[in-house]
Amino acid sequence: MRFFWASSVKAFCELPPCALRRTPLRASWEVRATSVHHYNYRSFSSQPQPDESIDMATPKEGKSNKLSFQLKTPKGTRDWIGVDMILREQIFSAITEVFKRHGGTQLDTPVFELKEILAGKYGEDSRLIYDLADQGGEDCALRYDLTVPLARWLAMNTSVQHLKRYHIAKVYRRDQPAVAKGRMREFYQCDFDIAGTYDAMIPDAEILRIVVEVFEALNMRDYITIKLNHRKILDGLFAACGVPEDKIRSISSAVDKLDKLPWDQVKLEMEEKGLESEVADKVGEYVKLSGGREIIDTIKADELLSANEHIQKGVADMELLFNYLEAYEISDKVSFDLSLARGLDYYTGLIYEVVTPLSTPEGFAQSQDKKKSKSKSDDPNVGVGSIAAGGRYDDLVNMFAKKRQIPCVGVSFGVDRIFTIMKQRQAKEAEEGNTTVRASEVDVFVMAFGGKGFNGLLTERMAVANQLWKAGIKTEFAPSVKPRLPQQFKLAENSKIPLAVILGEDELAAGKVKLKELGLPEGHPEKEGCLVSKDDLVEEIKKKLNKTALPLR
Amino acid sequence: MRFFWASSVKAFCELPPCALRRTPLRASWEVRATSVHHYNYRSFSSQPQPDESIDMATPKEGKSNKLSFQLKTPKGTRDWIGVDMILREQIFSAITEVFKRHGGTQLDTPVFELKEILAGKYGEDSRLIYDLADQGGEDCALRYDLTVPLARWLAMNTSVQHLKRYHIAKVYRRDQPAVAKGRMREFYQCDFDIAGTYDAMIPDAEILRIVVEVFEALNMRDYITIKLNHRKILDGLFAACGVPEDKIRSISSAVDKLDKLPWDQVKLEMEEKGLESEVADKVGEYVKLSGGREIIDTIKADELLSANEHIQKGVADMELLFNYLEAYEISDKVSFDLSLARGLDYYTGLIYEVVTPLSTPEGFAQSQDKKKSKSKSDDPNVGVGSIAAGGRYDDLVNMFAKKRQIPCVGVSFGVDRIFTIMKQRQAKEAEEGNTTVRASEVDVFVMAFGGKGFNGLLTERMAVANQLWKAGIKTEFAPSVKPRLPQQFKLAENSKIPLAVILGEDELAAGKVKLKELGLPEGHPEKEGCLVSKDDLVEEIKKKLNKTALPLR
Repeated sequence: MRFFWASSVKAFCELPPCALRRTPLRASWEVRATSVHHYNYRSFSSQPQPDESIDMATPKEGKSNKLSFQLKTPKGTRDWIGVDMILREQIFSAITEVFKRHGGTQLDTPVFELKEILAGKYGEDSRLIYDLADQGGEDCALRYDLTVPLARWLAMNTSVQHLKRYHIAKVYRRDQPAVAKGRMREFYQCDFDIAGTYDAMIPDAEILRIVVEVFEALNMRDYITIKLNHRKILDGLFAACGVPEDKIRSISSAVDKLDKLPWDQVKLEMEEKGLESEVADKVGEYVKLSGGREIIDTIKADELLSANEHIQKGVADMELLFNYLEAYEISDKVSFDLSLARGLDYYTGLIYEVVTPLSTPEGFAQSQDKKKSKSKSDDPNVGVGSIAAGGRYDDLVNMFAKKRQIPCVGVSFGVDRIFTIMKQRQAKEAEEGNTTVRASEVDVFVMAFGGKGFNGLLTERMAVANQLWKAGIKTEFAPSVKPRLPQQFKLAENSKIPLAVILGEDELAAGKVKLKELGLPEGHPEKEGCLVSKDDLVEEIKKKLNKTALPLR
Repeated sequence: MRFFWASSVKAFCELPPCALRRTPLRASWEVRATSVHHYNYRSFSSQPQPDESIDMATPKEGKSNKLSFQLKTPKGTRDWIGVDMILREQIFSAITEVFKRHGGTQLDTPVFELKEILAGKYGEDSRLIYDLADQGGEDCALRYDLTVPLARWLAMNTSVQHLKRYHIAKVYRRDQPAVAKGRMREFYQCDFDIAGTYDAMIPDAEILRIVVEVFEALNMRDYITIKLNHRKILDGLFAACGVPEDKIRSISSAVDKLDKLPWDQVKLEMEEKGLESEVADKVGEYVKLSGGREIIDTIKADELLSANEHIQKGVADMELLFNYLEAYEISDKVSFDLSLARGLDYYTGLIYEVVTPLSTPEGFAQSQDKKKSKSKSDDPNVGVGSIAAGGRYDDLVNMFAKKRQIPCVGVSFGVDRIFTIMKQRQAKEAEEGNTTVRASEVDVFVMAFGGKGFNGLLTERMAVANQLWKAGIKTEFAPSVKPRLPQQFKLAENSKIPLAVILGEDELAAGKVKLKELGLPEGHPEKEGCLVSKDDLVEEIKKKLNKTALPLR
């Protein structure tokens, strides 16, 4: 399946006939497009717009104690439909294609897990887990990510030794929503993980190749950088600089903020966490290192670092990795960045994070609503943050099953953030007129006309639509007993349906219908359409659509 | 996209090399297939199997107060992977294709809603709703179906006057699971609804046409019947027989049980609900009527019924409907059944339910596990119940928004029940050897061989895999530095991958690789494969696959 960049607008509603009659053709289409946009904007906002709460349910007769309530989706959630839904499906389909290309198989787990499964996996962020009310004995909670459910599955299914699995599904975090940046309480994750014992760094490199292919499929390859680091190198570095072992994880989380905060503030945090100033400075000197393969040489040439056993192991991994990244032609997309630490505790080896420049070529930052940027999390200058991230976690499955050791490496794509960026780009392309807008997937509109005493030919239109549905052709008709011909044309043109089948009483009596291409310019030889036998209709339509429609059986 | 009935088995795990070495080729594939089956059986069961709880997490050093817990999915939920997942995706894809053919557009709503949204919509069954724990002010609950979220969306989006929407997603009911029949606490629904004011019965007939097309796409057309009734006729019938108005809904729910219980028991329930015996008998006389269009004439000829105004309206609707069903060539699939009542309160017009014979041709009932059939709900003789159902609900949106009147009609497919039936059929076909098992979607396996001093050509294999991925070709290779050639062949053959690209040092030096079709019989002229230039490799593979691989950009 090819991934189309032209933003195709799917009609999700039809204008009522009265609106069609009142407005000229072009204007009515534009009114409709505006209304799509309007509702999308509203449903994208986690806070209900004022007009959503006006038309509320009110107490009914006999139910006078029924309270009215705000009509909205829960905080940090949204509905998806129309152009947004189509864009999201395009993103999913592009990503799925890459996953399958690498032999991935799909896993779907329940949206909630036993609470114990999630406990102790997310550190401080455990407070963001959505608990379910007590359901009679079993304590359950909505999943926080897709990684822990995978680890639970691997722990349960002990016969599986190797697995390449993908999972695209919603996860839940009771966090402060930042809607403009695509951070919601209910949001999609898109994960690919490779589980099993393999030769070193081979699956790790394939995951990074998959990352690049996904962004290539999304036409974003040029705008991304994969920041890489290795937990063994990072932990060795801390140890070598004199960070006490019990402080390594907390100092690590301070270092992780270097992409958002200046060094002074990060150092302050380290000192507050009990680190001596000179140790912090030594760490600071190393973690500012970033670049390509040459960073490996810098580390090897450094006396302090190269003496550390953890670092030696990490460096050996990174050397292999860079060999493989070169074979995969993606070494230009990575940045070996010693300040990358990643928050989660369970990583044990390579870690990575995909970032895109704060100010994308599409002018993401500029187009954000400045009024909303009061809190730090809403600051548009921070951009959307990382758009994919992951790493190696060799011991997570072991947390569930003592005897089960199955190393894993994987990546999670932040599809809602990716969506936000692509929507910006789509809006820009639409402004520039670079998009082809297709209002509907429907290919044929069946209509009828007649003179005095015309009865609407409803069952005849139904029978023809039925004939086309049976041949797999996407077909609609005006859902009225006796629609006027201009109204039918407008319905078809509003949805930019390419073909019309027109029924007339005399033609039908002769076993014929008119097949007409819509939107042809004046003077085109086929402007008026042509009569075809009802028996040949499917064949003629398929020819016109220049594709083979699919039989139902 | 055509819907393939041949059950294709997707490899979801790879055998570890040691297992491959120990077992002969065929046997190792079978071992694997068995293991797939085994785990599927386990994960399909809502009760954990004994071996799932053996290998549990145990207290770790320093966390000695951590309790161990059972490693399983929550009650009434399951994981999906492997053959089950593929079958489910095939069902979804067939259904989606039909929905799109009729101009449907997709809506996705949050998995939880404000509790007030769900309140008062499900009658007694409200107790089955999963509440979330208090999340700081907003009371939320997991959705119970997809209809109420649609009504909430329609109430919020007041500019939408007409909508054909579909929604395929999980819903939640804290019911007693009946696993063998596919009744779970988390399960998928697949809904298509038409909202808006149209001429009478036109959208209703299209929904029934969609129902037939879906079961046609699933090769089940011959095994289904759509039971039809009309709430206006049913309510008019009760009134005409003398059922007091405040008892109509409770008597209606008793009548709805006639497909499962004998008349005596239903009558007893009616009497317990306060109905006089002779009124009950009069009702009983009418509700046993079922058949085709002739039922309309029977009603019209009946003095008592034909005098009722509600019935007159309902009969007018049914006459139109049968005209339209004939145009759609599906009147043979419906049964006008006066005992059909449907549980939900919100239906206002046509109602329907798709049933399949208790004992399907695939021998569904017989193959069920008899040991489990202790409770009534587990009785295999009851079959899986209705596999799709729906109706017209003109006032539901109005419950959320006083000023908003938008009539709706829709259908919900019980995909988990459909899945259960189709899995039985698949198993039977596999027994009869009528299926083509394809172990993996991967098309090419890249391998290498060499003599003494052979280094495994890992980066060369990576580079070739990369070349193929870039051309959109699904490719894998052995994830080892130096795999032996027989091991590589076995990996490819286990997954029934059709093509191998074989790298040798000498050939590579000449810019060539060997392309070999796997599984050719002895003596076939191309059995040994042929040397092709690396530059032509993509082209040659595409020719062999007899399809156009898709470019990434």
